[in-house]
Amino acid sequence: MNDFIFPISHDEAKYKQIYQQLKMLIEQGNLKANDSLPSIRRLAETLQVSRNTTLTAYEQLVAEGYIRGEGRKGYFVNELEQVFLQQEEATVPTLSPKQEQPALIIDFRAGAVDQAHFPLKTWRQFANRVLQLEDSFIYCEPFGEPLLKEQLAQYLLQARGVKCRADDIIIGSSTQQMLLYLGCLLKHDFTSVLVEDPGYIGARQAFKVNGFELEALPVLEQGAQLHLLPDMQSRLLYITPSHHFPYGVTMTIQQRQTVIQWAKKVDGYIIEDDYDSEFRYAQQPFPALASIDQSRVIYLGTFSKSFLPGVRLSYMVLPKSLLYRYKEQFSEFEQNASSLHQLTMAAFMEKGEWTRHIKRMRIIYKHKMHYLVEQLKQHFGEAITIIGQHSGLYVLIKLHVHQTDTQLIKRAADCGVKVYPTSQFFLQNSVTEPMLQLGFSRLQLEDIKQGVQLLAKAWCFPSKNA
Amino acid sequence: MNDFIFPISHDEAKYKQIYQQLKMLIEQGNLKANDSLPSIRRLAETLQVSRNTTLTAYEQLVAEGYIRGEGRKGYFVNELEQVFLQQEEATVPTLSPKQEQPALIIDFRAGAVDQAHFPLKTWRQFANRVLQLEDSFIYCEPFGEPLLKEQLAQYLLQARGVKCRADDIIIGSSTQQMLLYLGCLLKHDFTSVLVEDPGYIGARQAFKVNGFELEALPVLEQGAQLHLLPDMQSRLLYITPSHHFPYGVTMTIQQRQTVIQWAKKVDGYIIEDDYDSEFRYAQQPFPALASIDQSRVIYLGTFSKSFLPGVRLSYMVLPKSLLYRYKEQFSEFEQNASSLHQLTMAAFMEKGEWTRHIKRMRIIYKHKMHYLVEQLKQHFGEAITIIGQHSGLYVLIKLHVHQTDTQLIKRAADCGVKVYPTSQFFLQNSVTEPMLQLGFSRLQLEDIKQGVQLLAKAWCFPSKNA
Repeated sequence: MNDFIFPISHDEAKYKQIYQQLKMLIEQGNLKANDSLPSIRRLAETLQVSRNTTLTAYEQLVAEGYIRGEGRKGYFVNELEQVFLQQEEATVPTLSPKQEQPALIIDFRAGAVDQAHFPLKTWRQFANRVLQLEDSFIYCEPFGEPLLKEQLAQYLLQARGVKCRADDIIIGSSTQQMLLYLGCLLKHDFTSVLVEDPGYIGARQAFKVNGFELEALPVLEQGAQLHLLPDMQSRLLYITPSHHFPYGVTMTIQQRQTVIQWAKKVDGYIIEDDYDSEFRYAQQPFPALASIDQSRVIYLGTFSKSFLPGVRLSYMVLPKSLLYRYKEQFSEFEQNASSLHQLTMAAFMEKGEWTRHIKRMRIIYKHKMHYLVEQLKQHFGEAITIIGQHSGLYVLIKLHVHQTDTQLIKRAADCGVKVYPTSQFFLQNSVTEPMLQLGFSRLQLEDIKQGVQLLAKAWCFPSKNA
Repeated sequence: MNDFIFPISHDEAKYKQIYQQLKMLIEQGNLKANDSLPSIRRLAETLQVSRNTTLTAYEQLVAEGYIRGEGRKGYFVNELEQVFLQQEEATVPTLSPKQEQPALIIDFRAGAVDQAHFPLKTWRQFANRVLQLEDSFIYCEPFGEPLLKEQLAQYLLQARGVKCRADDIIIGSSTQQMLLYLGCLLKHDFTSVLVEDPGYIGARQAFKVNGFELEALPVLEQGAQLHLLPDMQSRLLYITPSHHFPYGVTMTIQQRQTVIQWAKKVDGYIIEDDYDSEFRYAQQPFPALASIDQSRVIYLGTFSKSFLPGVRLSYMVLPKSLLYRYKEQFSEFEQNASSLHQLTMAAFMEKGEWTRHIKRMRIIYKHKMHYLVEQLKQHFGEAITIIGQHSGLYVLIKLHVHQTDTQLIKRAADCGVKVYPTSQFFLQNSVTEPMLQLGFSRLQLEDIKQGVQLLAKAWCFPSKNA
């Protein structure tokens, strides 16, 4: 039993204050049935009151039935009838951390990575070694650990064609955190931002929190409608060129040059969110926008898709025009990403484990993607259109049926399968048929097979629509 | 050797583009002496050009001396004379991550924790177990892991007298990150914030980034000048009541009630930064401000001092009036703190390891503090005033000498001791004598002894001033 501590004033009898505090803690459920209370002596010491005071308070509580004494074992909280509990108790959520949804069997959730092929042993080894470093016991470098930034500079050059110095990189904990910080700087020069429609909601909210107006750039399955750029008011563009979220389409080199030219002409910036470029299955990865013109492109990357979302490790490469202003504006800020994870990742990359991991996962995810697409085609045939199967960790399916996405999701859930809507990604642009998102990264092939079978059953395929 | 990737256009001979790119990478130092290049075949595949194209490019580079062929082993970058390197190279920092300052022996740095008594084995065990959980492979809960928030709710009740539900807690990665996010919400209702002078710069900068005006509340060694509160314009107060930064003074219960009354009267909020309340050596910890009136207090806590700064784990408890608005404003934001660290800390707390760690460290730090103070008194006697020795992980010393802090720091460094200025913590308020900060958390007793001896030597004590 730990100590309690609360303010004791001189306005009222002390035993009464203790009695009232404990009573309230019990009534509000902060102290639960059979919780042990500190001893008379202990509580007196903690609160710097006499033992008689705490004894009197306890006796009052015993008399009223809130607590009981068990001889030498001390005092314990009694079970209270529900009726005794104050109304507030009813609104206190119970302590079970995650509600189970027992009916669900297969969850086509997108925000996850494969657990079975995670390099657990290697990562652990490196992580344990990092915990012995002296550097792990001091405050981290404010803009990220130099060792990780050097590894990232090499990786970005080799894999994404982005030439940068380690010092041009800023480490962060999430895309939104970086966008929010960046927005604090950019809002001095820009009042609105052009965002893809449909597009990533997290980015939009980060811009909105900073007071930016959002201007929608329509994106179709074939790609962003860049011919509309000259008509737009904004000079700031947030875009996902390597793998549009959610359509999965990739910008061609001509399109990339178009947006760069646009940014130069309007004297603006492009924020390139390169969130999962590692996983392309059909062709070689295209170079990042930032490889074409670094002075106009703010490059964002993350380890959430390619490694583990829980490590909360992201990074950005800033053009020189912003870099020094950024470092000045946030000079007194502490780093947001764990230095332990940063140093572990630096060692992991330095030893070549990172490249190996990406190569391995590309093969595994490619296999899962093909299998999912094959299963979907087999069960749904021409009744659905599959979108974005050449890269990333999910596909979209557009269903040629007269039902809403809400209905389809509900019917799937009733059969034990969780699939996700896409309507929230749209601002003004819209699709006429229901479109759903199916992530596969953490599912095994057996789950994928069963999941698609259950979806076919839930949506009455093939008997009805196929 | 990994692949290179860069855009190839149709406007110019392809071999020439490859030649130019590689030449530039070498000249700018991105490719270094003896780095290996991809094979002719490999590069051709990556860039989707013919092998003749890459071969021609390589031959040109060999002819010009940039690279060399070593038969079957492949191609390698040659050493370039410094004169060949472009000017930009000169500005590229070398890859040595931390510059050593070889003369320094003893560093009285404040932003650190004791490494020798860190519960390495237990933490590792828990951390390794967490890596096997399914939850570690999906995106974290946006406002923090429920398991950790439950543990924190219990801890805050027992140790700080703060009654809250797990859901009232928001996990974050750093005090500044939380202040920046919070500021995005508060700036709709408040335009200025009252900050302690002297006080914590990180908080001030977070407010400034959000456009808040700063109003200074003078703090003397005896405490904040609360009688000035009625004259202040701001209705928002950022304060460190349990351990003022940097003076280390603690607010009495009467002072606490004064600020609460003030906040009620002006319809404002108090942001209570309770950053190291775990380490009080003279008395029992005082209850947090938030234990007196939770509706007016935003409570901030961190694991940076009490556990490990590198885990980047902080938390805040919001009044109900702000909680729902906060959760709405950041509904699409991802969590910033590592879920692996969060789950590890939850297990660590649940098993009682956290309480044990704090108790152990309190004894160790108390011992180090006493030893440092004793050494200082012994060497400097009446020539210095020691401030803040009853809590925290550092002391301030005010030197009764006619020298600036810059001079004293320089002379200490020349003798191999690093001590820190405090002048940057002051806005308008100031001290007439030089005041320095000496952190001791990661120093051993021997280091402390030697450090103080060297300081006495550096500053010519006792021969001159004692």
